Amino acid sequence: MSKEITSREQDYSQWYNDLVIKGGLADHSEVKGCMVIKPYGFALWEKMRDQLDKMFKDTGHVNAYFPLFIPKSFLSKEASHVAGFAKECAVVTHYRLMNDPNGGGIIVDPAAKLEEELIVRPTSETIIWNTYRDWIKSYRDLPLLINQWANVVRWEMRTRLFLRTTEFLWQEGHTAHATEQEAVAEARQMLDVYATFVEEYMAVPVIKGVKTPNERFAGAVDTYCIEALMQDGKALQAGTSHFLGQNFAKAFEVKYADKNNKMEYVWATSWGVSTRLIGGLVMAHGDDEGLILPPRIAPVQVVIVPIYKGEERKSELDAKARELAAQLKAAGISVKFDDNDNKKPGFKFAEHEMKGVPVRMAMGLRDLDNNSIEVARRDTKEKISRPMDGLVEYTGDLLVNIQQSMYQKALAYREQHITRADTLQEFEHLLDTKGGFILAHWDGTAETEEAIKDKTKATIRCIPLDTVEEEGKCIFSGKPSHQRVLFARAY
Amino acid sequence: MSKEITSREQDYSQWYNDLVIKGGLADHSEVKGCMVIKPYGFALWEKMRDQLDKMFKDTGHVNAYFPLFIPKSFLSKEASHVAGFAKECAVVTHYRLMNDPNGGGIIVDPAAKLEEELIVRPTSETIIWNTYRDWIKSYRDLPLLINQWANVVRWEMRTRLFLRTTEFLWQEGHTAHATEQEAVAEARQMLDVYATFVEEYMAVPVIKGVKTPNERFAGAVDTYCIEALMQDGKALQAGTSHFLGQNFAKAFEVKYADKNNKMEYVWATSWGVSTRLIGGLVMAHGDDEGLILPPRIAPVQVVIVPIYKGEERKSELDAKARELAAQLKAAGISVKFDDNDNKKPGFKFAEHEMKGVPVRMAMGLRDLDNNSIEVARRDTKEKISRPMDGLVEYTGDLLVNIQQSMYQKALAYREQHITRADTLQEFEHLLDTKGGFILAHWDGTAETEEAIKDKTKATIRCIPLDTVEEEGKCIFSGKPSHQRVLFARAY
Repeated sequence: MSKEITSREQDYSQWYNDLVIKGGLADHSEVKGCMVIKPYGFALWEKMRDQLDKMFKDTGHVNAYFPLFIPKSFLSKEASHVAGFAKECAVVTHYRLMNDPNGGGIIVDPAAKLEEELIVRPTSETIIWNTYRDWIKSYRDLPLLINQWANVVRWEMRTRLFLRTTEFLWQEGHTAHATEQEAVAEARQMLDVYATFVEEYMAVPVIKGVKTPNERFAGAVDTYCIEALMQDGKALQAGTSHFLGQNFAKAFEVKYADKNNKMEYVWATSWGVSTRLIGGLVMAHGDDEGLILPPRIAPVQVVIVPIYKGEERKSELDAKARELAAQLKAAGISVKFDDNDNKKPGFKFAEHEMKGVPVRMAMGLRDLDNNSIEVARRDTKEKISRPMDGLVEYTGDLLVNIQQSMYQKALAYREQHITRADTLQEFEHLLDTKGGFILAHWDGTAETEEAIKDKTKATIRCIPLDTVEEEGKCIFSGKPSHQRVLFARAY
Repeated sequence: MSKEITSREQDYSQWYNDLVIKGGLADHSEVKGCMVIKPYGFALWEKMRDQLDKMFKDTGHVNAYFPLFIPKSFLSKEASHVAGFAKECAVVTHYRLMNDPNGGGIIVDPAAKLEEELIVRPTSETIIWNTYRDWIKSYRDLPLLINQWANVVRWEMRTRLFLRTTEFLWQEGHTAHATEQEAVAEARQMLDVYATFVEEYMAVPVIKGVKTPNERFAGAVDTYCIEALMQDGKALQAGTSHFLGQNFAKAFEVKYADKNNKMEYVWATSWGVSTRLIGGLVMAHGDDEGLILPPRIAPVQVVIVPIYKGEERKSELDAKARELAAQLKAAGISVKFDDNDNKKPGFKFAEHEMKGVPVRMAMGLRDLDNNSIEVARRDTKEKISRPMDGLVEYTGDLLVNIQQSMYQKALAYREQHITRADTLQEFEHLLDTKGGFILAHWDGTAETEEAIKDKTKATIRCIPLDTVEEEGKCIFSGKPSHQRVLFARAY
């Protein structure tokens, strides 16, 4: 089975597609740019979603649901928002089909044209702030801490499974606050929630930063982000949290009466992560044999494969394996007993390797006699035979160990791939050879940022939050700079 | 607060809207026919969704996600499906907006017209069966037991919050089987799952039945349904489960190789329930003071309201209430301590009554001295003062009791409102006076069914699964009939 996977070295992009499709995460659909999330991929998303949802609720947020459609005129209300989002989007113009009177099959009924076109939401700030106008009257109604799990559509010309699809699933938080300070704190808090999730659950280290004005969300005052590094040395924006100032409150006339009954515009944030995270997970950890999933979000943490010798003692082996599965399950470990008779053990091994199941246990007749079992971990491919006694506790520890070790490995790679460059030549050489993040001086202008991008295809991923002041010269213009910013080529 | 609610007697339809909007479940949006599900309503949906999801997984199903858009040509592939669904739907014709060169703001870019229009899914049989063609090759791939939680759009001319909205949330199960028998068993199993959920969690009794050919899902061989009765004597279809035969397999050429390597068409089912259930919940249980939610799906089961006397012993009261809340929470009871200083206790009482919180506890200074508490149940409005000792166990029992008693009350109402009619006159009289379900003889023809509907606005809700053979004469045509079917006016 593993032979079917293109190696990273041979074709990184094809390797990625192989893992996604053959690992059972997703498939292309016949609708251009839209994917089908397959059961295994969706189970992974459910694990991620449920954990994020818990973290949102623990920080005081509640869920709600707003319409899929946005009237075209709403998009125009916030000046920079419309420039960013009213471009490539799905436009609903009619509401009825009919039989072609000329026998041409089903056609759009020309009489059923909408007065105002509806846009399938690319993001929901406008429809939500239009609603908040009715919900917010007084300081007593604030803060409003709402999140939505939804599908959104952005008409992409070049799509890649999970990383960039026309339709994707995400969550979008939309909060309203009485003060600027509180809104900024909220945006920063949610960035921390994202960083914690991606690092501690996905085992992917991230750099927290703020975007340059050029790379800001359309309508934001500040866009905070987390940036992760993939194995090909390219960066992936893993989540963003926006401080929106009063832009949407002003666009939709959302005011509240403060304690002195004075009317003030409301302060806002929005923040989101999407199924794109799955793409990042695949690329951060996978190897040439398939996916490698971190235990804390793996849909199946342990798979048990029985090695039968025909019918000989099959029921005894099954009973023992089922007993083990029950014990692991009782300890809160998600386990699959793979007793499918149609597949040989070797085939199953390759399949579970492909799917990135963190721990594989194999049990044959000899194991039965010795009261032992073979335990293989997916990340390091280490295999040991060990006694059945104390296996549950051992497995729990092993899963913790795998989680940490996957994070440490990714962190070590990331640390080795943050390099400083002091000249444009150095910068370009690094990009073409080593890749990764590059810390370099930049003169702070959008022109230079664009010029560097045009010349090198690298963008400023962020100004890291933990940046330290350092005098230097912009690698491009030679003008003075007071801090290094983080560059990379990116997805 | 309760005074704001129109009474059922005065205007049932307005009463329903008042409960939905003032109870905090949903709001109209500015997008025609689309609603906003507010946080409290969404929390209720989450409780329902999570329980259903668990029941689906316990019966072997997994979740996946398919595209929002369906190419127009897909709808035409199943002959009766297209007739049923390719009518009122949202049609995406363009994929880009642009600035009007004549200064008219944002307009649809005429150059960005799709070659083939996309339909926002009204249901997903076609896109899913088009995908199943690639997933199903052999009997080893069957059964395929997949569910999807999604939003769907049906362009409705007359909408009502939850009951009939242009966009709604639902789940749709789509399963594929090797044999007809297995597919029929699946459709029946999921009908049972729905019935169990609606009766045991929503406390709403249902009648299981099969639809007449006229009322079948477009593309189904048989449509099973559960029918519930609302307090105005009208029926609500609460869920449907379809045996689709080989219709979609034939339309999308989905075949599997059986054990003898012979190619056979696959057998299918689909089944769904939606946010419409929330509308049924509201109408089955609510009263003129507001919502009444059954404990098993209530987002908040117990609310604790402190009755302060200014600042006097406020901290003592708070501490006691918090301790109680922690104890209830530890026992798995969802509890809210309503210590909002901006609202008076009487206002809070009315608010929690409006929101249908099953149990309200109120604690004042005298309670503190007596180590007692006032406990009020929402459904019967009974109020007692009882000692704090053993309160957690008492509350657990009380919640069980409320759940059962709500079901029994709804069941008693339903039983009183199933009436037999033997003549059309009797039938019409019943409809206009008592309402409810009417069991009557029908000659089995679509013409008679239509004629009765035209004359009385009553439809055949179903042929109950537990029907008994009985000779009689059709109330309309006088022709012979062998069983009674269930009529009602319906939502």
